[in-house]
Amino acid sequence: MPDLSPLFLIAAGGSMTTKEIAMVLLGLGVLLLVARLFGEAAQRLGQPSVLGELLAGVLLGPTLFGALFPGALETLFPSEGTVSAFYEGFFVLCITLFLLVAGLEVDLSMVWSQGKRALIVGLGGMIVPFAMGFGLGWFAPVLLGMEVGSDRFTFSLFIATALSISALPVIAKTLMDLNLYRSDIGMITVAAAIFNDLVGWIIFALILGMMAKQPEAMGNYGTEVVADEKLPIGWVIVLTLGFAGFMLTIGRMAIHRTLPFLQAHFTWPGSAIGLAMALALFGAAFTEYIGIHAIFGSFLVGVALGDSSHLKQKTRSILHEFISFIFAPLFFASVGLTVNFITNFDLLLTLVVLFIACVGKVLGCGISGRISGLGWRESWVLGFGLNARGTMEIILGLLALEAGLIGEELFVALVIMALVTSMMSGPVIQRLLKAPKPHRIVDLVTEKTFVADLYNRTREGVIQELSEAVAKATKNVEVEVVARAVCERESQMSTGVGQGIAVPHARIPNWGTPVVAMGVSRDGVDFDARDGKPAHLIFMIITDSEDNGAQLEVLADIGKSFGENSALRSEMFGAKNYVQMLALMKTANQEAGH
Amino acid sequence: MPDLSPLFLIAAGGSMTTKEIAMVLLGLGVLLLVARLFGEAAQRLGQPSVLGELLAGVLLGPTLFGALFPGALETLFPSEGTVSAFYEGFFVLCITLFLLVAGLEVDLSMVWSQGKRALIVGLGGMIVPFAMGFGLGWFAPVLLGMEVGSDRFTFSLFIATALSISALPVIAKTLMDLNLYRSDIGMITVAAAIFNDLVGWIIFALILGMMAKQPEAMGNYGTEVVADEKLPIGWVIVLTLGFAGFMLTIGRMAIHRTLPFLQAHFTWPGSAIGLAMALALFGAAFTEYIGIHAIFGSFLVGVALGDSSHLKQKTRSILHEFISFIFAPLFFASVGLTVNFITNFDLLLTLVVLFIACVGKVLGCGISGRISGLGWRESWVLGFGLNARGTMEIILGLLALEAGLIGEELFVALVIMALVTSMMSGPVIQRLLKAPKPHRIVDLVTEKTFVADLYNRTREGVIQELSEAVAKATKNVEVEVVARAVCERESQMSTGVGQGIAVPHARIPNWGTPVVAMGVSRDGVDFDARDGKPAHLIFMIITDSEDNGAQLEVLADIGKSFGENSALRSEMFGAKNYVQMLALMKTANQEAGH
Repeated sequence: MPDLSPLFLIAAGGSMTTKEIAMVLLGLGVLLLVARLFGEAAQRLGQPSVLGELLAGVLLGPTLFGALFPGALETLFPSEGTVSAFYEGFFVLCITLFLLVAGLEVDLSMVWSQGKRALIVGLGGMIVPFAMGFGLGWFAPVLLGMEVGSDRFTFSLFIATALSISALPVIAKTLMDLNLYRSDIGMITVAAAIFNDLVGWIIFALILGMMAKQPEAMGNYGTEVVADEKLPIGWVIVLTLGFAGFMLTIGRMAIHRTLPFLQAHFTWPGSAIGLAMALALFGAAFTEYIGIHAIFGSFLVGVALGDSSHLKQKTRSILHEFISFIFAPLFFASVGLTVNFITNFDLLLTLVVLFIACVGKVLGCGISGRISGLGWRESWVLGFGLNARGTMEIILGLLALEAGLIGEELFVALVIMALVTSMMSGPVIQRLLKAPKPHRIVDLVTEKTFVADLYNRTREGVIQELSEAVAKATKNVEVEVVARAVCERESQMSTGVGQGIAVPHARIPNWGTPVVAMGVSRDGVDFDARDGKPAHLIFMIITDSEDNGAQLEVLADIGKSFGENSALRSEMFGAKNYVQMLALMKTANQEAGH
Repeated sequence: MPDLSPLFLIAAGGSMTTKEIAMVLLGLGVLLLVARLFGEAAQRLGQPSVLGELLAGVLLGPTLFGALFPGALETLFPSEGTVSAFYEGFFVLCITLFLLVAGLEVDLSMVWSQGKRALIVGLGGMIVPFAMGFGLGWFAPVLLGMEVGSDRFTFSLFIATALSISALPVIAKTLMDLNLYRSDIGMITVAAAIFNDLVGWIIFALILGMMAKQPEAMGNYGTEVVADEKLPIGWVIVLTLGFAGFMLTIGRMAIHRTLPFLQAHFTWPGSAIGLAMALALFGAAFTEYIGIHAIFGSFLVGVALGDSSHLKQKTRSILHEFISFIFAPLFFASVGLTVNFITNFDLLLTLVVLFIACVGKVLGCGISGRISGLGWRESWVLGFGLNARGTMEIILGLLALEAGLIGEELFVALVIMALVTSMMSGPVIQRLLKAPKPHRIVDLVTEKTFVADLYNRTREGVIQELSEAVAKATKNVEVEVVARAVCERESQMSTGVGQGIAVPHARIPNWGTPVVAMGVSRDGVDFDARDGKPAHLIFMIITDSEDNGAQLEVLADIGKSFGENSALRSEMFGAKNYVQMLALMKTANQEAGH
């Protein structure tokens, strides 16, 4: 075919064989499935999902699967040829889009609303670990395994930045899980993390720009080697700061003006999603071109875009869900594939990095929190909150490894440090604040305490039936004790709350953690509700006599979940078992959340 | 770094230079932006968006941009090397995911509910064009430009299939636009199209399996050439039919059982999206591996998944929006990049293909519609509805081109045929049924007839003010004529309909198309509503005396858009101009639609 058309297209015959295409699809499928499964498992253990996603890659990569079956690994994820070229581009795309979403979550107005305090903590939380990191890099480069030929100043700057950057997504998630996101201390933490993120990334972009990066030889691909002409460092700094300044001012306003126009004249959400993606790609192309990495461009586009009040919740939600659950797991799993985490593990190095990172960050934030006028306890909460490095540290380490600035041992140490600091953040804050996790109805009703079709039709009968379920699920409790306590309470005042819901309950001495039994009655049971309707959903709540809050929390959550959602109430009749009930309840919660 | 780890990862230095990565990101951004813009433009002209997306690729590719600036095209979309390898894999991924969404839209229960009639039309609508296509391919292969060395039987089978396959997504969209989707004739059309799709794709898969496809030489990539061992054709047929049978029975049920489990125990919608994507990739890998194309696997996975009532609307919506608005435009634009549509354009060939395609399909469907007991008019509607080839034909042609079965001239003719049949489908049906497009409030209120902040506070004043807006937007109408007619009607019965809405209206002789003026009153105007509340949103509706339906349609649409959406009513106060009002109304419509 004598044609000038680009031959990369599948139409033109392409250069991948059928088997290679099949392997690409299989490889992506396996990576996605395993990463999602491990991510879910991590979340169920109360850990950030990135932990599981990375572990999935470690298991699939050279550390385990590849060590056992090197041939199979090479077939699925070959190290050269067209398939590897595809993966290279694809993972750049994944991380670029992940940073778009990370940028969307940055809420600039939050920094301003927290004002001086956020700035003090943000600065203090950077300066101390930065100084410690720089000192370590400068005076002990050999301990850290600096690559031969690297510039000590650049290397020290990198270590300094790596230790001082926080992971906003992980921090936000931890605070939400603890119900602290909208509290005072939560707001300051997030505001400081946003400040930290913005400043940290710009510094890191400058470091990348400063480094002399040699273009790869490409002889084995048959194409001509064109040397990348590097921009002088002065220009890189000017362009980086200029681009950041532009996106946060003019770019931000232009986007804010464009969105209503798109939503008025074009299809929606298609047009808004398309705009977000195209701008992210352009921003990424620009920053990649000037010699810092693609992710800075898409991150700044995300910040500018997320700031617009015209960006609708549904648009955010589609971008967030698709990218966080598809592209991000694929990327973090690919990080696990990168290196052998066992042969490159250096215990001493890992401990040193972990120690300096924690001490620098917790002290820096803690002391500056105290200076800004917070109590000691709150200051430590702030310190351990901002100590979480999670996703950001991993990305940063990967870029440094790519750039030849650090070796694989230090990369592994940084990844482990990122995961450990993220994992400890939640539990330490919980202990410091003695903040118990909120009681939610989805967690409290279990397979044993759910009765899909109540047999009894009288109030006493139903209480007896649910008491049996409670006794079955709880050790050393007699059915009669529970039933009697609930009936006694019921005789004082009936517990039908209307809309077909009843909440018989009792507080029993030395009961411990709350237990909730849930029954569905097709015919309805009279619980003497004010609206006169029979109860179809009956929740029996047993709490400890000493624990006043638990009962109220559970009652409020029942009201929120079922009272405001008539569709969910009627769907419950279709639930044939515990799993179906739980699925309905969880998906309804999510729909309401958006 | 002496390591066994896959070197494709960006961490390992990779083989793409910084400039190449920047070009990939830029190329994707440009392709997405231009494709989305042209797709939107096509939709505004009442055409399927694929028309615009393909045109975007034609303009960016060798036909125009490449002909003018061959060097720039080669830089952005190079024909060999790592960048082209990335694009090749990426576009396979795009089309694989597009077919997943196309599969999700297939509603098997619809075929059963339409029963015998759908089967008769589906079969008749395939057999006639299939026979005509086969005859043409067999007796006039040279006219069609069969590639030298191709097997005449396989070639004829392909032409037969190509002419007999319909495009479900385009047909569904056309029917929705005409408000016919849920009508009797609409249901039969869609059911027949689904039947057609399933059978057509399976036949085409078998054709691909039958073809002897030689592996590409890969010498210039430096990797060893391993010949693809082709499965014997008997095995391909057994595996294809076996896989289809499996996915539509056991696979379908397994998915239906798995979804509630995921939604109960895992995060949602993340887990459902992840499952859909992973299964689509596995299915695609399997079908690609056995020698038919990746898209069949993801299509069948989509059908099996879409059939489950446990797949929530939100999950469908996220997959649909992201894939239809990102991956699909990128893919169809890439089709435009593939060949030069001017040098490969053959008028005679195109006319022959177009003629045979239309005659075969319209006659086949029309006659079998009549046999099944429909009137002639309905039968022709069916014929022209199913005549739309749109997206499916383009994909089919591309695969045949890739497989070396057809030449570029025939490919161009097929693409043009697909677009022309899709474009004529809507207008012809509209004329046949004399079905006017429904009047919708979003289309009727224009920049001239929107008053963001009403100055007057009395009923008469507001009517006067809105009459002026109506007169401004309509030629040869005096303000007084409009105002008097509306006031007269108002004096018979007040038009405050409650919830802060009023709908003053009048019918005027020889008025023509309806005009609606909309005003927002911050203080509220008394329109004597039954709930006693003042009106804040006032819609003045002027229709033709002869056109009874128009007024009712507009009134019903106002009720649906605003009556049921109190959030939207209050958001309207924030609309400072027409564009902001329109953006709010359109996004609210969309939210309600899901």
